[in-house]
Amino acid sequence: MSLNSYGHVFRVTTWGESHGPALGATVDGCPPGAALSEADIQVWLDRRKPGQNKYTTQRREADEVRILSGVFEGKTTGTPIQLMIENTDQRSKDYGDIAEKFRPGHADITYWQKYGIRDYRGGGRSSARETAARVAAGGVARAALAQLVPGLRVTGYMVGMGEKDIDRTRFDWDEIERNPFWVPDAVAAEEWAGYLDGLRKSGSSVGAMIEVSVRGCPAGLGAPVYAKLDTDLAAAMMSINAVKGVEIGEGMAAARLTGEANADEIRMGPDGPIYSSNHSGGILGGISTGQDVVVRFAVKPTSSILTPRKTITKSGEETEIITKGRHDPCVGIRAVPVAEAMAAAVVLDHLLLDRAQTGGVRGPIG
Amino acid sequence: MSLNSYGHVFRVTTWGESHGPALGATVDGCPPGAALSEADIQVWLDRRKPGQNKYTTQRREADEVRILSGVFEGKTTGTPIQLMIENTDQRSKDYGDIAEKFRPGHADITYWQKYGIRDYRGGGRSSARETAARVAAGGVARAALAQLVPGLRVTGYMVGMGEKDIDRTRFDWDEIERNPFWVPDAVAAEEWAGYLDGLRKSGSSVGAMIEVSVRGCPAGLGAPVYAKLDTDLAAAMMSINAVKGVEIGEGMAAARLTGEANADEIRMGPDGPIYSSNHSGGILGGISTGQDVVVRFAVKPTSSILTPRKTITKSGEETEIITKGRHDPCVGIRAVPVAEAMAAAVVLDHLLLDRAQTGGVRGPIG
Amino acid sequence: MSLNSYGHVFRVTTWGESHGPALGATVDGCPPGAALSEADIQVWLDRRKPGQNKYTTQRREADEVRILSGVFEGKTTGTPIQLMIENTDQRSKDYGDIAEKFRPGHADITYWQKYGIRDYRGGGRSSARETAARVAAGGVARAALAQLVPGLRVTGYMVGMGEKDIDRTRFDWDEIERNPFWVPDAVAAEEWAGYLDGLRKSGSSVGAMIEVSVRGCPAGLGAPVYAKLDTDLAAAMMSINAVKGVEIGEGMAAARLTGEANADEIRMGPDGPIYSSNHSGGILGGISTGQDVVVRFAVKPTSSILTPRKTITKSGEETEIITKGRHDPCVGIRAVPVAEAMAAAVVLDHLLLDRAQTGGVRGPIG
Amino acid sequence: MSLNSYGHVFRVTTWGESHGPALGATVDGCPPGAALSEADIQVWLDRRKPGQNKYTTQRREADEVRILSGVFEGKTTGTPIQLMIENTDQRSKDYGDIAEKFRPGHADITYWQKYGIRDYRGGGRSSARETAARVAAGGVARAALAQLVPGLRVTGYMVGMGEKDIDRTRFDWDEIERNPFWVPDAVAAEEWAGYLDGLRKSGSSVGAMIEVSVRGCPAGLGAPVYAKLDTDLAAAMMSINAVKGVEIGEGMAAARLTGEANADEIRMGPDGPIYSSNHSGGILGGISTGQDVVVRFAVKPTSSILTPRKTITKSGEETEIITKGRHDPCVGIRAVPVAEAMAAAVVLDHLLLDRAQTGGVRGPIG
Repeated sequence: MSLNSYGHVFRVTTWGESHGPALGATVDGCPPGAALSEADIQVWLDRRKPGQNKYTTQRREADEVRILSGVFEGKTTGTPIQLMIENTDQRSKDYGDIAEKFRPGHADITYWQKYGIRDYRGGGRSSARETAARVAAGGVARAALAQLVPGLRVTGYMVGMGEKDIDRTRFDWDEIERNPFWVPDAVAAEEWAGYLDGLRKSGSSVGAMIEVSVRGCPAGLGAPVYAKLDTDLAAAMMSINAVKGVEIGEGMAAARLTGEANADEIRMGPDGPIYSSNHSGGILGGISTGQDVVVRFAVKPTSSILTPRKTITKSGEETEIITKGRHDPCVGIRAVPVAEAMAAAVVLDHLLLDRAQTGGVRGPIG
Repeated sequence: MSLNSYGHVFRVTTWGESHGPALGATVDGCPPGAALSEADIQVWLDRRKPGQNKYTTQRREADEVRILSGVFEGKTTGTPIQLMIENTDQRSKDYGDIAEKFRPGHADITYWQKYGIRDYRGGGRSSARETAARVAAGGVARAALAQLVPGLRVTGYMVGMGEKDIDRTRFDWDEIERNPFWVPDAVAAEEWAGYLDGLRKSGSSVGAMIEVSVRGCPAGLGAPVYAKLDTDLAAAMMSINAVKGVEIGEGMAAARLTGEANADEIRMGPDGPIYSSNHSGGILGGISTGQDVVVRFAVKPTSSILTPRKTITKSGEETEIITKGRHDPCVGIRAVPVAEAMAAAVVLDHLLLDRAQTGGVRGPIG
Repeated sequence: MSLNSYGHVFRVTTWGESHGPALGATVDGCPPGAALSEADIQVWLDRRKPGQNKYTTQRREADEVRILSGVFEGKTTGTPIQLMIENTDQRSKDYGDIAEKFRPGHADITYWQKYGIRDYRGGGRSSARETAARVAAGGVARAALAQLVPGLRVTGYMVGMGEKDIDRTRFDWDEIERNPFWVPDAVAAEEWAGYLDGLRKSGSSVGAMIEVSVRGCPAGLGAPVYAKLDTDLAAAMMSINAVKGVEIGEGMAAARLTGEANADEIRMGPDGPIYSSNHSGGILGGISTGQDVVVRFAVKPTSSILTPRKTITKSGEETEIITKGRHDPCVGIRAVPVAEAMAAAVVLDHLLLDRAQTGGVRGPIG
Repeated sequence: MSLNSYGHVFRVTTWGESHGPALGATVDGCPPGAALSEADIQVWLDRRKPGQNKYTTQRREADEVRILSGVFEGKTTGTPIQLMIENTDQRSKDYGDIAEKFRPGHADITYWQKYGIRDYRGGGRSSARETAARVAAGGVARAALAQLVPGLRVTGYMVGMGEKDIDRTRFDWDEIERNPFWVPDAVAAEEWAGYLDGLRKSGSSVGAMIEVSVRGCPAGLGAPVYAKLDTDLAAAMMSINAVKGVEIGEGMAAARLTGEANADEIRMGPDGPIYSSNHSGGILGGISTGQDVVVRFAVKPTSSILTPRKTITKSGEETEIITKGRHDPCVGIRAVPVAEAMAAAVVLDHLLLDRAQTGGVRGPIG
């Protein structure tokens, strides 16, 4: 069963805890012949790495990935690829408080209730540190995509932070790489810097809204009716720590529209169908249309804040807790590279799945 | 692979097209010994059945379910349960227009692109008619849940229709069964009736917002990190036709909150932990807390409207289309029993999965 | 989980009991565009059908298959194919004895122990009647194989019955269709007729050895290391009722050989590698070589015999049982079309799986 | 898809190549709370370790296992357990010959044909070195079994080597640990030593027959009809390198028996049903009876011999090959701990699966 795995054909199993010796991803089903080196993966891990600026946790991790199997002479062989990242900053400290008290909004209490045992050090398996393994696996997915669909680009970016939204009239793909928030709006980037600094200093935290676009996605990907492309993207995003909502294209706002307002009319372009708009987010009936695939999700504010919150201990005593330590004022920032990685894995998975289903056969138009 | 199946242990495969001889669900992994008859399932199918009032499609289907296997002397045996619903209203008509033109916002074009063949009669496999099979399977899930967790209740209801929202101060569980919209607000029910009648007469359509609550859900359900309870609920809802967004608890709004505002503080009650609020929607770290599990999703307006829309034909010619016929002005209404069924299946599935994982072991509190 | 399903991509779920209203197979993952009609499937079901001669059970079943979904205008659409066979000969009789006493060698006792409930009519789900659904699904697999690999032939035949073996020097493919045992040796066919007639008259039963060859199987099928072609064939055959052993190529006899005797030397033919022998049964490292794939399995004698056997009742009382009724003296005969169907499904499944894994890329030789 | 994984609930994915940096197993679905240390696993790895006597390959590997995740304070936590074994003896040598020539009877040619790329060093992924990961995973399975079913014992042993068979009248469980062949017959152990020494000196090799018994296996394990206990055991054994046949209980010999000879009659014992014999190998209808579960399999002789064999090169030229190096005259010896590990994993998997299916409900007898 898929407890710690995702994907139908491109199948990733992540493993490891926040403060164990290492964590990583076992990647099965990657096609043979794709060029892949540790550097190809490291570049994505470096984007997610903590401690790079004052807006993210000050935990220091090299996050150096090692490929232990599945690659020979610089190419994937079709056998399982094992990616390992050693934990280096396992700061020796007293976990007594967290070992006994459940932090509100964390998985402490539910892991305890479910398993009757939990690795409380840094959240154990429930820590967002697990997402490093996802980013590494996403690097493999990108390598395979580069071989199979050269023009395809998977790009994540923030579109909201707390009460602040981007202005889509200023949307600039190139701006994404220029600021610490991966926000495609230079004005917002500057404004958000001050806003988040204030939150950080006050020991508070704030939620975030993130969007991922897949440009150059071929039509025909998605397996109705329970492995739809949107279903799998929704599951992938919802599986990321602290995510509370996911939407495709028009998303939740579609509930308020009429059929006339929501329709994407179809015209014939030189290379196939073109659409007057993209309310659908590039997916109809669970299958990609050839337009940009657009998925968006909300990350809740981290519960690790300096304001004391009421809680209980394992023995049922009522108490209060303050979560000190090295936490992110906006954990959503670091969710951007994670979401990109998940989207890349889903798209590759559906490319491979479609080969199995249809062999790439397509109904011609025109 | 899970192309037409959902669930880890309680595994449902649906089959059938809108205008084929029959459709149904193959249900595998239902525990033995649960009381189950056709009537137990029929009651849920009758809620979804079309043609019951002027707000839903006038297609007339008896939607009578037959149990073909897996039940002996009124009880489930642990073997696969086959549920079949014959299609009776396959009105003989000319599909010529739909066979050649792609309806904007429908899966017509993507099915054609992917498979190179499609059953265009009534949308074929992409029709919402497939959801009858889900409702039938949900009836089996409810029967097993009734045996395993007697107090558990799965209830769906509308919380928004187009621009109209419910007023949560008027929320009344008993009102849900009293109006054709399954809306828990008597004032809204009346107001929406007029609103929808206007839309229906003008040949337009509108989206909807639906919520499902699971009351009495035990703590400890959900399998981190890729079969989280919220992940599986999100996938289940997103797989329903026309759904464009899914959220848990605070949902998309969590992006705008601070950590202080979003925290659910914990106190000790007589029977275990109690929470000051339910921003989490009853799920932390992907595992149920014992609070109500709350999932919400948006259904887009149906694209079948009387206003002509631009489109193309299979041969690539540009044209227009009006979708006549027996369609719903608010397809979201009939999504309510479907969503309930999906939620029931997910919760049962996680109960069974948890037995495998932990054998029901629980970490004691207090 | 794969409780009542087999296959990775071409995924079959069977359902139904011996004496329920119907049984069948839900076939998911069949590629679109393959020509398929009910007649294409019926031809294979007719081979397995009981009551055709005095050597098989006298139960009379029409075994007429209906396709309820997944086929449109004579072609598969890529959506699930539901195959239903109604049970017509559910002879009304007194099952009292079988309901209370466990038949030695049957699944009566283990189903009861596992599930605490069982459909005792004719063995319920444990009856070999379930294999009709496999044969139907095999018909779908053959239709898809005919489209994808026109020259491929899957052929089953008996090579032993009780103490009698075939003489391989008389092996004749054409003889297989000419006798009721599907034995490729005309002399054996005649001899076995008398032998089995004697067993039948004495109310005894006997085991059988069956072989399936896949001629024209392309090289490169099989997914190391846990979805090897031989692993999947072994599982497929072992899942058939009454099968106690499975072997590939040289099989169990390989244990007695030296490396010199067992090696298949390689030479270069006009169209690729050729081998001096086929000890490997066409599979090396779990991947097909391009030679004939050869799998063989043993079927135990049916436990339903006229000699009284000691047993117990549900309430634990010691007693004796004689199984009267319509049973096969050599149940292995009817296993031949079942095994063919399973082998066809496995080969198709690996063809589709290989498309996902490698896209059909092949390392060139010469 | 299950390409490099086995198990339904207790799910193991192995990874790694013969001459890569490391290999290992990702174990998902192990229940929480089982006592587990590296030493608990090492004891089983040491049994399989090469270079321990003159009868097995002289490759020297420490085969030291590290647990990288899933264990906290000496107990499993229910999260994935990563087991890593570093390859230390990657003797630098010239692989030129093996890189170009295909060894007859090896997977060299099929890996090349399938993937178009292969890691030729020591066989890469197709090497029996992969089985070290299985043995490590089996150690985890044994730890969980020890917690759940204390009396259960999984024991493997050789029953044949080339032309030599054991004498079952001398069967002695205690003898198994006393000789290098794990043979339960002291006379055979001595005789085989000389026999194998002769084969080793002549550069030849020989096949083997191995049996695994599960004593103390509870009744009720196995999920009909495609996850039967015998089906899963057959797949597990057939997936081991060089295995060509698998049988349960009476096995292939059942084909020759009559129903009278093959029946296991049932009597009532003090603690439940007892059987007059065990032709069934402890499994009826795919479900365990409570008797010893008995599975047996044949390992072919290794193809790496000193006699020159005809073969071809990647460029299609005809040539000869002698496989020098550190190979086993009877590779079947080291298959014993591997088979034990696989059997332990299958039995644990079915224990957990049965909890999901039935919650441990049992039909009472007597």
